[in-house]
Amino acid sequence: MVTTWPPNFPVLGEGCKLFSDWVFAMSGGEMAIKIYGSGELIPALECFDAVSSGAAEMASGAAYYWAGKNEAFPFFTSIPFGMNAQQMNAWLYSGGGHTLWKELYANYNIIPFPAGNTGMQMAGWFNKEINSIDDFKGLKMRIPGLGGKVLDKAGGTPVLSGGSEIYTNLERGVIDATEWIGPYHDYVMGFHKIAKYYYAPGWHETGSTLELLVNKREMDNLPEHLKVIIETAAARFNVWCLSEFESKNNTYLKKIIEEEKVEIRTFSKETLSALQKISSEVMEELGNKNEVNKKIYTSYMDFMKGVRNWSKYSEKLYYNDISL
Amino acid sequence: MVTTWPPNFPVLGEGCKLFSDWVFAMSGGEMAIKIYGSGELIPALECFDAVSSGAAEMASGAAYYWAGKNEAFPFFTSIPFGMNAQQMNAWLYSGGGHTLWKELYANYNIIPFPAGNTGMQMAGWFNKEINSIDDFKGLKMRIPGLGGKVLDKAGGTPVLSGGSEIYTNLERGVIDATEWIGPYHDYVMGFHKIAKYYYAPGWHETGSTLELLVNKREMDNLPEHLKVIIETAAARFNVWCLSEFESKNNTYLKKIIEEEKVEIRTFSKETLSALQKISSEVMEELGNKNEVNKKIYTSYMDFMKGVRNWSKYSEKLYYNDISL
Repeated sequence: MVTTWPPNFPVLGEGCKLFSDWVFAMSGGEMAIKIYGSGELIPALECFDAVSSGAAEMASGAAYYWAGKNEAFPFFTSIPFGMNAQQMNAWLYSGGGHTLWKELYANYNIIPFPAGNTGMQMAGWFNKEINSIDDFKGLKMRIPGLGGKVLDKAGGTPVLSGGSEIYTNLERGVIDATEWIGPYHDYVMGFHKIAKYYYAPGWHETGSTLELLVNKREMDNLPEHLKVIIETAAARFNVWCLSEFESKNNTYLKKIIEEEKVEIRTFSKETLSALQKISSEVMEELGNKNEVNKKIYTSYMDFMKGVRNWSKYSEKLYYNDISL
Repeated sequence: MVTTWPPNFPVLGEGCKLFSDWVFAMSGGEMAIKIYGSGELIPALECFDAVSSGAAEMASGAAYYWAGKNEAFPFFTSIPFGMNAQQMNAWLYSGGGHTLWKELYANYNIIPFPAGNTGMQMAGWFNKEINSIDDFKGLKMRIPGLGGKVLDKAGGTPVLSGGSEIYTNLERGVIDATEWIGPYHDYVMGFHKIAKYYYAPGWHETGSTLELLVNKREMDNLPEHLKVIIETAAARFNVWCLSEFESKNNTYLKKIIEEEKVEIRTFSKETLSALQKISSEVMEELGNKNEVNKKIYTSYMDFMKGVRNWSKYSEKLYYNDISL
């Protein structure tokens, strides 16, 4: 298994190790998975190709990393102003999403499984105040993918930089802001030492699904019990990972606020509404580019609309009127 | 496996069947689990004792069904104004909750696993309007457990009745109101035909964890691979079940509103705040009754406080400012 995470990366790398342990134990030692951190065998962004060609049998990553191959991939990780973790799982497991995902990846000789979720992310670390949508104008921010496209349309400059360069770039003012993940991983990166404001919510990644990739030919040749072992271990990875994020983010947010005295800010409703308008345009254009995109876009959007309507009587009331 | 669900009960019974299929497949046919619906082998409420004594090897149920044995059990299902599904999973898998649960059930020769979650429930079906906390006075409502205790303290009369009698009791005015689960299961029960109002949110069950019970002696005697197979299949059941509830509740809420023309109401903030005050008193008393209760109560409450603080920057903002 090649992975897009540095060796032993918190939560995501740990989850791959657990996944491998579970598969080994369940198969009575029949299937032993050796895990390679990013760069150990191949670079992070070549994992998809490695599994597709059969150079590696498995990978752990996220669909939006390979958006260059197919613009529809991000629907299976996270899109700006998209579904959260609970809704994504519902779409994937029970709303037809996983079927569409498998159809799409079959073209690349890969079978995907949901295997991990970050939950809601933070908007990121800023050295400039954001009081309205206009404050994104001229903002140099490290924000990849569709979020970057939205920033660009808002007048900002999305900057690409690998994990290892972000800290220095932010410190030296090469960038004004950066997103990363959430309180736990952000704390480990040390951004609180060099950024003034920590903004919420993570509008660009509202619950990113991580994926297990398996070479389709290799999977098809496995006996039935190993197939089900892989799929079941992936589901356990999925629920374990989200739980670990919720738990650790809670602990580290407290540290960031109380020990590091960081000021947490939230974007105004007006700012978010303006970002949402741009995001909708970006997604609509992407979703209508071809028949494949359209099928996935329509399924995603229809499910999101319905589940959000239900959330008005359930989770939304929970967070507003019960969880005080 | 004995279960507390009627044979083939939607989602929960289906989930038991899937669990059994996964275990059978993963073990290469080594472990075949025969499932009995409630009443087929023993009555629903005797499942815990059956697993404890070894009369059955496994059961599917919910900890709060056995609160008569130990008042601390409901912490592992749901308590009024408690955590939601995502938070419960985080507490159980990553916040020490599952360890406490295993310690508690070890006294009964049982090992518990989280295996299913209903997500947020609805408050229920009412033939009287609830505009303030005073409207609960004299209200005869089918609501078991801690929710029933809260209703009692609010001046109402909690009525116990099995699933099969609720419809007739509500139709004949023996009760004024009933809670059940959420849009999908409630629709199947047909309550929309005989009740005037459908209220949200389900303050008394904000994300009920369901459990897999395994006889401890039997489990301890299993080879390692079957132990991990059971635990991993339970985790898959857990995430599948919540996803299925989210998906089906979304579909059936739409039916209830659009086809059945049911009026959905929400309790006012003041009404919920009054219910929450009573609930806190009930839980504080229960949580301080003895050392065991106190240990679990403290762990639950501390985790809830922390994770709710994190939700103010994540999920709460998602539902208010992103999911529009």
